[in-house]
Amino acid sequence: MIIDIHGHYTTAPKALEQWRNRQIQGIQDPTQMPRASELRISDDEIRESIERNQLRLMRERGLDVTIFSPRASFMAHHIGDFNVSSAWASICNELCYRVSRLFPDHFIPAAMLPQSPGVDPATSIPELVRCVEQYGNVAINLNPDPSGGHWNSPPLFDRHWYPIYEKMIEYDVPAMIHVSTSCNPNFHTTGAHYLNADTTAFMQCLASNLFEDFPTLRFVIPHGGGAAPYHWGRFRGLAQEMNKPLLDEHLLKNVFFDTCVYHQPGIDLLTRVIPVDNILFASEMIGAVRGIDPETGHYYDDTKRYIESVDMDADDRRKIYETNARRVYPRLDAALKAKGR
Amino acid sequence: MIIDIHGHYTTAPKALEQWRNRQIQGIQDPTQMPRASELRISDDEIRESIERNQLRLMRERGLDVTIFSPRASFMAHHIGDFNVSSAWASICNELCYRVSRLFPDHFIPAAMLPQSPGVDPATSIPELVRCVEQYGNVAINLNPDPSGGHWNSPPLFDRHWYPIYEKMIEYDVPAMIHVSTSCNPNFHTTGAHYLNADTTAFMQCLASNLFEDFPTLRFVIPHGGGAAPYHWGRFRGLAQEMNKPLLDEHLLKNVFFDTCVYHQPGIDLLTRVIPVDNILFASEMIGAVRGIDPETGHYYDDTKRYIESVDMDADDRRKIYETNARRVYPRLDAALKAKGR
Repeated sequence: MIIDIHGHYTTAPKALEQWRNRQIQGIQDPTQMPRASELRISDDEIRESIERNQLRLMRERGLDVTIFSPRASFMAHHIGDFNVSSAWASICNELCYRVSRLFPDHFIPAAMLPQSPGVDPATSIPELVRCVEQYGNVAINLNPDPSGGHWNSPPLFDRHWYPIYEKMIEYDVPAMIHVSTSCNPNFHTTGAHYLNADTTAFMQCLASNLFEDFPTLRFVIPHGGGAAPYHWGRFRGLAQEMNKPLLDEHLLKNVFFDTCVYHQPGIDLLTRVIPVDNILFASEMIGAVRGIDPETGHYYDDTKRYIESVDMDADDRRKIYETNARRVYPRLDAALKAKGR
Repeated sequence: MIIDIHGHYTTAPKALEQWRNRQIQGIQDPTQMPRASELRISDDEIRESIERNQLRLMRERGLDVTIFSPRASFMAHHIGDFNVSSAWASICNELCYRVSRLFPDHFIPAAMLPQSPGVDPATSIPELVRCVEQYGNVAINLNPDPSGGHWNSPPLFDRHWYPIYEKMIEYDVPAMIHVSTSCNPNFHTTGAHYLNADTTAFMQCLASNLFEDFPTLRFVIPHGGGAAPYHWGRFRGLAQEMNKPLLDEHLLKNVFFDTCVYHQPGIDLLTRVIPVDNILFASEMIGAVRGIDPETGHYYDDTKRYIESVDMDADDRRKIYETNARRVYPRLDAALKAKGR
C-alpha cells in the first residue's frame, strides 16, 4: 500500500473561494458577512473535483490513500480575527471530511486549525476535538507563523503552544508544521516561505528541549524538511556546539520528513542522509508545482518515480510508503485496520 | 591555487567587541559614545588573531587566498541608526583592510555596508566607494534584511536597492547576499536565519526580472544556496509556472553558490545539480560550525575534503577552486595578476 501523507484540497469547487471572498469583505462590512449555511457545494461537485484531479493522478501513479487537509495557502490565518478563522476552518475541515466520506478508500482527513495572530492557540482546541472525534481526522496542520510571514508568534518550543501539544498527545495525532500564504513581499509563498518555515521549525526543535517535555509528540516537517537534510552536517555541528545529544536521539524519535522534493538528486540526498524510519512518502499533489519536468517528461510532483529510482531494498521502500505512516499516524493505522487493510 | 571566497574576521581582538559594547551603550547615553580613535588594536594583535586561527587552518588545509569580510553576525544592522552602523562598518572594514595589508598573499577584503533599517541603501555608497577605492575591496556583503529577522525592507528586486547595484556594476564587484544576527526569537541565526535568507534571496531573483535590468549584476548566495539546490526541481517548476526562462538562462549568468555545506552528501548534491561554472569554493572558516565531525574525524567546515571526494575532472575542480572566483570577482583576479599569480 502507498500512503501519501501530504495532500491538500486545492481543487475545491469555486463556490468555496467565492464564499471566502465574501467573508473577507465582511470583515470591513459586517452586513456582508456570509453565514456558513450560505455555502452550498453538492456531493457531485465534490466528487468531480476529486475524481478529475487528485484521484485520477493517484490512480495513474499507483497511490492508494492520501491524508487530505484543507488547502494550505488558503488557510491565511492572518486574515481577520479568531471568529473569521474559526468559521473558515470549520468550513474547510467539513469539506475534507466530506471528501473522506465520498471516497473512504482513498482519503482520510487532517485538520487545519482556526489560528489567528496574537490569539492563544488553546482557542483552536474545540475545532481540533471536533475534527478528531466527529470527522475522524488523523493529524493536524499547525501553522508556526499565523501572521503570514511576519513571524511574530513565539517559537514552537514556547509554552504558548503547549495546550495544542497536550491535546495532540491525548489523541495521539501528529502535526504537520505548515505555514500558509505569505503576505510579506520578501517571501514567495511556495518558493521561500514554505521552505523557510520548514527549516525554522526544524531548528527550533534542535535548539530546544521540547521533546524532553513531550517525548511522544510528533512533528512532520514537510517539503523534504526544507533545508535541513541538505545541511545535515551543519545541523549536526550546531547541535554539537549546543551540547545537545546526537540528532538521532535528540530529534529523530519525534521529527519526520516527507518526500515532497521534486527532483531525483533531492530525493537521493534525503534518503542517503535521513534514517529511513523518519521518511514518509508524500507528493503534495495537486500543489505548488503542477508542471511536467522537461528533463524527465514526468510531473515534477510525481515523487513515487524518484523513490522507485533510489537504490534501496523493498523493506525500506515499504517503510517510506506505508509502515512509517502507520506508526506516525496511529489513527490512520487504526482506520485502515478497521477495514481489514 | 585555492581561493576561499567566504571568510569573516570572527577572531578579531576582544577590544573590538568591547568598543562595540560601548557604542551600543552610547545609543542610550550619548555621553558614553566612544570615538573611533578610542579603539586601539596593534598590528601584532591582528597578526596573532589571524596566524593562530584562519591562517593556521588555511595552511593545514592547503588554501591560498581568502576573501575576508567583517564578522557577519556582528554587523547587526538592526542596532542603532545610520550613524551607529556607519561608524561600526568603517571600523570593521578598516580592520579587514589591515589584515589584507599584513597578510597580502593570503587575504583580500570584502566590505560590509553601513545599512540600517528603513534607511535608503544609497547612504551606504560612500563606504562602498572608500572600501573599493582606498582599501582594494573586491566585493561587498549585502544584507537583504537589516532588521535582523523582521524582514521589513523591500525585496532585492525592488528599486530601493538599485543605487547599490549601479555602484556594484560601475566597480564590477559582486555582492554576497548575507544577513546578520537574528533578533527574532523564531530564527536561530546560523541554523535558520542564514539559510532562510539564502533561499529567500534566490527566490526573489527567480520571481523577478532583476537581471534584465542589470545583466552584469552578480550575486553570490552563500551557505550552498540555502535550500535552493536541494529543491532545484521545485524551483525549476516554479519558474516554469511563472513563464520564466530556464534557470540557466534566467539566473545562472548572475547567481553563484558557495560550497559552505558541511557534509559530503550536501556537496555531492550541490555539484550534481548546479553547473560547475556557478560553484565557488568557500568554507566560512572560522564560523558557525567549528567542531570536528565524529562521523569523519575532520572539521565540519573543512569543505575542501568534500570537494576532493567528488568525482569530477581536474578542470572542473579548478573552476570551483580558482577560475570561477577570478571571473566573478574581477578585482580579485586583477590583484592576483598584479602580483604575477
